[in-house]
Amino acid sequence: MKSAFRSAISTTLAFSFRSLNPTRHRPPLTLLSKHSPLTSMAGGESGTHVPSLATFQSLEKQFEEFRHQLEDSGSLRERIRSVALEIESATRLMHSSLLLIHQSRPVPEVLETAKRQIGLMRELFSRLAEITRECPGQYYRYHGDWKSETQTVVSLLAFMHWLETGSLLLHTEAEEKLGLNPDEFGLDIEDYLIGICFMSNDLPRYVVNQVTAGDYDCPRKVLKFLTDLHAAFRMLNLRNDFLRKKFDGMKYDLRRVEEVYYDVKIRGLAANGEKTGEQNDQAQS
Amino acid sequence: MKSAFRSAISTTLAFSFRSLNPTRHRPPLTLLSKHSPLTSMAGGESGTHVPSLATFQSLEKQFEEFRHQLEDSGSLRERIRSVALEIESATRLMHSSLLLIHQSRPVPEVLETAKRQIGLMRELFSRLAEITRECPGQYYRYHGDWKSETQTVVSLLAFMHWLETGSLLLHTEAEEKLGLNPDEFGLDIEDYLIGICFMSNDLPRYVVNQVTAGDYDCPRKVLKFLTDLHAAFRMLNLRNDFLRKKFDGMKYDLRRVEEVYYDVKIRGLAANGEKTGEQNDQAQS
Amino acid sequence: MKSAFRSAISTTLAFSFRSLNPTRHRPPLTLLSKHSPLTSMAGGESGTHVPSLATFQSLEKQFEEFRHQLEDSGSLRERIRSVALEIESATRLMHSSLLLIHQSRPVPEVLETAKRQIGLMRELFSRLAEITRECPGQYYRYHGDWKSETQTVVSLLAFMHWLETGSLLLHTEAEEKLGLNPDEFGLDIEDYLIGICFMSNDLPRYVVNQVTAGDYDCPRKVLKFLTDLHAAFRMLNLRNDFLRKKFDGMKYDLRRVEEVYYDVKIRGLAANGEKTGEQNDQAQS
Amino acid sequence: MKSAFRSAISTTLAFSFRSLNPTRHRPPLTLLSKHSPLTSMAGGESGTHVPSLATFQSLEKQFEEFRHQLEDSGSLRERIRSVALEIESATRLMHSSLLLIHQSRPVPEVLETAKRQIGLMRELFSRLAEITRECPGQYYRYHGDWKSETQTVVSLLAFMHWLETGSLLLHTEAEEKLGLNPDEFGLDIEDYLIGICFMSNDLPRYVVNQVTAGDYDCPRKVLKFLTDLHAAFRMLNLRNDFLRKKFDGMKYDLRRVEEVYYDVKIRGLAANGEKTGEQNDQAQS
Repeated sequence: MKSAFRSAISTTLAFSFRSLNPTRHRPPLTLLSKHSPLTSMAGGESGTHVPSLATFQSLEKQFEEFRHQLEDSGSLRERIRSVALEIESATRLMHSSLLLIHQSRPVPEVLETAKRQIGLMRELFSRLAEITRECPGQYYRYHGDWKSETQTVVSLLAFMHWLETGSLLLHTEAEEKLGLNPDEFGLDIEDYLIGICFMSNDLPRYVVNQVTAGDYDCPRKVLKFLTDLHAAFRMLNLRNDFLRKKFDGMKYDLRRVEEVYYDVKIRGLAANGEKTGEQNDQAQS
Repeated sequence: MKSAFRSAISTTLAFSFRSLNPTRHRPPLTLLSKHSPLTSMAGGESGTHVPSLATFQSLEKQFEEFRHQLEDSGSLRERIRSVALEIESATRLMHSSLLLIHQSRPVPEVLETAKRQIGLMRELFSRLAEITRECPGQYYRYHGDWKSETQTVVSLLAFMHWLETGSLLLHTEAEEKLGLNPDEFGLDIEDYLIGICFMSNDLPRYVVNQVTAGDYDCPRKVLKFLTDLHAAFRMLNLRNDFLRKKFDGMKYDLRRVEEVYYDVKIRGLAANGEKTGEQNDQAQS
Repeated sequence: MKSAFRSAISTTLAFSFRSLNPTRHRPPLTLLSKHSPLTSMAGGESGTHVPSLATFQSLEKQFEEFRHQLEDSGSLRERIRSVALEIESATRLMHSSLLLIHQSRPVPEVLETAKRQIGLMRELFSRLAEITRECPGQYYRYHGDWKSETQTVVSLLAFMHWLETGSLLLHTEAEEKLGLNPDEFGLDIEDYLIGICFMSNDLPRYVVNQVTAGDYDCPRKVLKFLTDLHAAFRMLNLRNDFLRKKFDGMKYDLRRVEEVYYDVKIRGLAANGEKTGEQNDQAQS
Repeated sequence: MKSAFRSAISTTLAFSFRSLNPTRHRPPLTLLSKHSPLTSMAGGESGTHVPSLATFQSLEKQFEEFRHQLEDSGSLRERIRSVALEIESATRLMHSSLLLIHQSRPVPEVLETAKRQIGLMRELFSRLAEITRECPGQYYRYHGDWKSETQTVVSLLAFMHWLETGSLLLHTEAEEKLGLNPDEFGLDIEDYLIGICFMSNDLPRYVVNQVTAGDYDCPRKVLKFLTDLHAAFRMLNLRNDFLRKKFDGMKYDLRRVEEVYYDVKIRGLAANGEKTGEQNDQAQS
């Protein structure tokens, strides 16, 4: 066993920060304190189960390595959190601009202001990618530190895209807008889907405010979009998790929009818009 | 509508669950993005925001792909869970054998029975490694599905190692015992450390039962080991998380063993071990 | 022993509760520290660590001082709590009067009754200021004892101000109404902001009751106010705390008012107000 | 009312970061965004309750000021937290060294190592003092961000002081050791007292380990110290709070030490130490 320990020591000399990744090689670590309390404690008893000096040294070395690795991992996490906070801040500005849509401000004007944050967003995500490049294969180890911010970004981009095109921002399009290279640092599918659910939560409010402002065709258009989206989501076999819960909420968005559409129809307010809509529907089916 | 779905399916047949990994290639998606809503919008309808047929097809295609990917991911997770359950089952058998140590059965006999599970353990971990090989770079995506079982395995192996050698099972030794290739599927450092904390939780009970059975030198030996281990852990800057909490518990194990050692000493029961112990103390001071 | 206590008391008579403030002078303590255990140790007993008589005296003296200080601090706190309870009582009366607004009583009448409490309020806050004047620099030490009551006062004053002027009660105006001298005892910004959030929570109910009573222009006016207020709050980078939570709630107030406005519009009830409103909308876009 | 608003604006121009302190003067704030969504919204309706352009501008100005103030306050808090984390880290090293006392290492050696952190401690506390100097009178606004770390520091210093002198580290002595200038940034009395309670929690373990190592006079000495300390605390009229709870725990420390003293006496182990102790007691009473 003693010899096993010794070989363990020489093996563990080949550690470093990258060994945080259990599937990576571990280049050498230097700097081990030579006068620690632990080594001085090692006595010389023979036989029985009293570990030797070599044992204490390997214990010490191992924890010294762990200390470095945990510190490296901690500082990496801090850097990620700091970028995530900047993403959150840029998202807040983008959201503020987008909120003006509820006051019936012209779409192009609202979009233009909101889009001003996209350049910064791309830069921030490129910094995230750069940081994770330092720890290859550990995207999911730190994923929890940026996922919530990313989901919000997706929801805003998707809302903007819908305002602009009337269609859903696809996953690849979202990656493109954020300047992500999926071979390196992609957009997690569940983050994308949760972001889409968040966007759906904003649609009933949008519809209500558009009708209030006199746009009686809006409910029909939103309802069509949301119905398709809901149907698409229903194809997915979602586990019993956060995404599932968010998707369950989409049902209520759909119902609310249906009610508004009903209000508009029953009062004959949608009369004109209706025709255009039905022509459209035929073109699509 | 149906035919759109069908063509989407045939396209996505070219997908494998590897696209779950956001840092991997996704060739079919890049092909698809040629028919994205953005392009179809540009060429399409006059002005209004009503998406075209092409748009709906890309929506469907995307969700069809997601369906495959989530199903692949789900079935992968099921396979991992199934292996993790087998690990848990083998661990239970190993634990049962080890519990006999509290009834003062001879150490070699107890260890022999417990070790019988190690072969199976190695096989199960090699199956885990094989499964994660299918999704490179996603170790931490599924880590939550085996980490708890792995921590328990580490705690048992470390206890057995301590019984055999009187020293701490090192991280590399644990990987070796489980037949892990750290370049491919290693033992996460925090899982290792949590496993060691679990082992520490068992020591007070062991000491109490050994003293009851007349082994009055046991408290001194365990106390020495636990003191060194506790000091080594204190070198680490632990975040305020699960590992931190487990480590905080080690303090109580230490105190309990100190109390037992105290009882033995104050009654003059540690007489023989005493001498050796004090020589040790002198050697250390 | 007794005499030691007595001399400690006479020494500490020179203390006032101002020494509670860690940034203030404490002359008697510096005098005492001449007889500290350190000095007595140096001159004293031969080697062992048994403290001298002088040591015990300084221990006693210190705790005797603490006793006075904690008692002073405690009685100060009681006086503050007693004023805070009176503020709470006056607030309740003011709130009772204001609630009549939901029964469509004329605004001037309602305001007149509510305003009767303002004189008492000013007096109570001037008593608070007087008490804290006794402990300069410790506003935030006792802040927890009046903040909740102050937030409610702000919410009522802001509601009254809105009824009267249609605009937000500013922070400086709130201080003015309460007769606060910001150089001495000001209104904490977070207390002000939380109070404003509380006021926002009352607006949906007000709008519903006004529409019930036939005031169909009320939703538009409240919506405009709340939208501006919400946008202003969004400029702030709120920490993840109580204020943040309260502000998150404002979103629901906004939505509820939007829904009422929608109901009124869709039924063509906002006809008259409508025109003014749309002129407004045009002026804004 | 309009004129009141206007004067409010000119008054609020005299704001700045220091106005976080409600009892301080507010020098001018510049930098107000001129093209915000809010100003553009201001219509020109006369009469009724529709606020004027001036109103919107003051609303905007106020929130712009708040934004700056909350950001300043947030960054101040971050700086404080960062120093507090460094204090925590230095405390951990100090604690590690002190733990060796439980392994019966010679007191002077243990103290020497632990004391090496004191220089760093002083520097860190001087940085804390420097930061709070930027916000005079707001010690207690940010107190929650360093109090827990400070309590631990006090407990370690007090334990070291007791090992060295056998007496309690007084409040002024603790301030002195940390290089605090009580006129500027003192040690809160409750933090001091809680730290002392923490120290008391470590004494039973110390006594147990000392007896185990053959120091049979230790229980008597610790018991005397703890009894005096407990009696001194009992003089205080503690509110029903954290300090009270910690003090209640001291009772159990006392009991445990009494039990160990009893064990030692009943076995005649304290015979020799006893005499010295009683002589001492006489000298002290």
